[in-house]
Amino acid sequence: MYEGAVQDLIDEFGRLPGIGPKSAQRIAFHVLEADREDMNRLADAIRAVKDKVKFCEVCFNVTEQEKCNICRDTRRDATVLCVVEESKDVMAVERTRSFRGRYHVLGGSINPIGGIGPEQLHIRELLNRLHDDTIEEVIIATDPNLEGEATSTYLARMLKSLGIKVTRLASGLPVGGDLEYADEVTLGRAFEGRRSAIG
Amino acid sequence: MYEGAVQDLIDEFGRLPGIGPKSAQRIAFHVLEADREDMNRLADAIRAVKDKVKFCEVCFNVTEQEKCNICRDTRRDATVLCVVEESKDVMAVERTRSFRGRYHVLGGSINPIGGIGPEQLHIRELLNRLHDDTIEEVIIATDPNLEGEATSTYLARMLKSLGIKVTRLASGLPVGGDLEYADEVTLGRAFEGRRSAIG
Repeated sequence: MYEGAVQDLIDEFGRLPGIGPKSAQRIAFHVLEADREDMNRLADAIRAVKDKVKFCEVCFNVTEQEKCNICRDTRRDATVLCVVEESKDVMAVERTRSFRGRYHVLGGSINPIGGIGPEQLHIRELLNRLHDDTIEEVIIATDPNLEGEATSTYLARMLKSLGIKVTRLASGLPVGGDLEYADEVTLGRAFEGRRSAIG
Repeated sequence: MYEGAVQDLIDEFGRLPGIGPKSAQRIAFHVLEADREDMNRLADAIRAVKDKVKFCEVCFNVTEQEKCNICRDTRRDATVLCVVEESKDVMAVERTRSFRGRYHVLGGSINPIGGIGPEQLHIRELLNRLHDDTIEEVIIATDPNLEGEATSTYLARMLKSLGIKVTRLASGLPVGGDLEYADEVTLGRAFEGRRSAIG
């Protein structure tokens, strides 16, 4: 619809996740009207991520060095390993400030329909990490959806044979939510996982 | 939260209109995982818009030349002028395929609280265009909100004295909508603007 460069930019923004045609147009016009320096900074930031960022050679979290800042931090507890699907999940767990161990990023979840099997994930590298005796507990923190549960079950079965304590995150009612609005699966899980109310 | 380049990119995306922190993170990780060539194309498209795109010297629509493609098109009716707030609005009217005249882009709307008065808009240039005798009708197509209505009223008063036919877009029920869901102002306007139902 637009001429040359404006339409090109709308098209490029429209290819990003979660940006529809209207948003893409709105952003493109913002770029057009914004400060040139600010927009150069945006363009440079895109290139910088592609040039500088790689994956930690130990846990596959994002980093600009050989090892990520969590793997480099010697104060972190090396006996507990939290297994997550993506680097985003590392950040989500970090924000809780309730975990002081280390991570292993699988790079996705088992999804036979999408052609993702265990061999496409960093599971071999996880097994290698477990071969030395440091790690005492593996906490599986995959997404609470079909693929995440399948991945969790697969890992739990595999790790059981190694004699390591394997746990998974609790399912239940989200804090701050309304019981009546909880879906039946979540509410069912909350019943299954009920704990003693007295201390 | 993240290291260097990833956080920089999240910050930059987060400054764009309509992109919250979660979306910015999602897009930044998409950039990280996407094809390098595709992302270079996005970065180049941002720079290209800043380098190539300017405003039409006649109507202030976006263009990469002196005049926009509508002003260059000699088949367009030069006797009718549609006044809009933004270039985006030109595209919205063009998509209807019901207007074959030319445009004038004001570059915004009168908004005293935001410090935008008539002198910040391309109103002087509009008057200059009306000085030759070609234009017979001016259609005011500002947004149907407070600022747009104020701009429309201002323009209508000013243009009345020039002896040119001045019209504005009809307000009323949006086609395909439900009467019961229309807000009272829109429904009120639909009553005021009612037309003969028999031919």
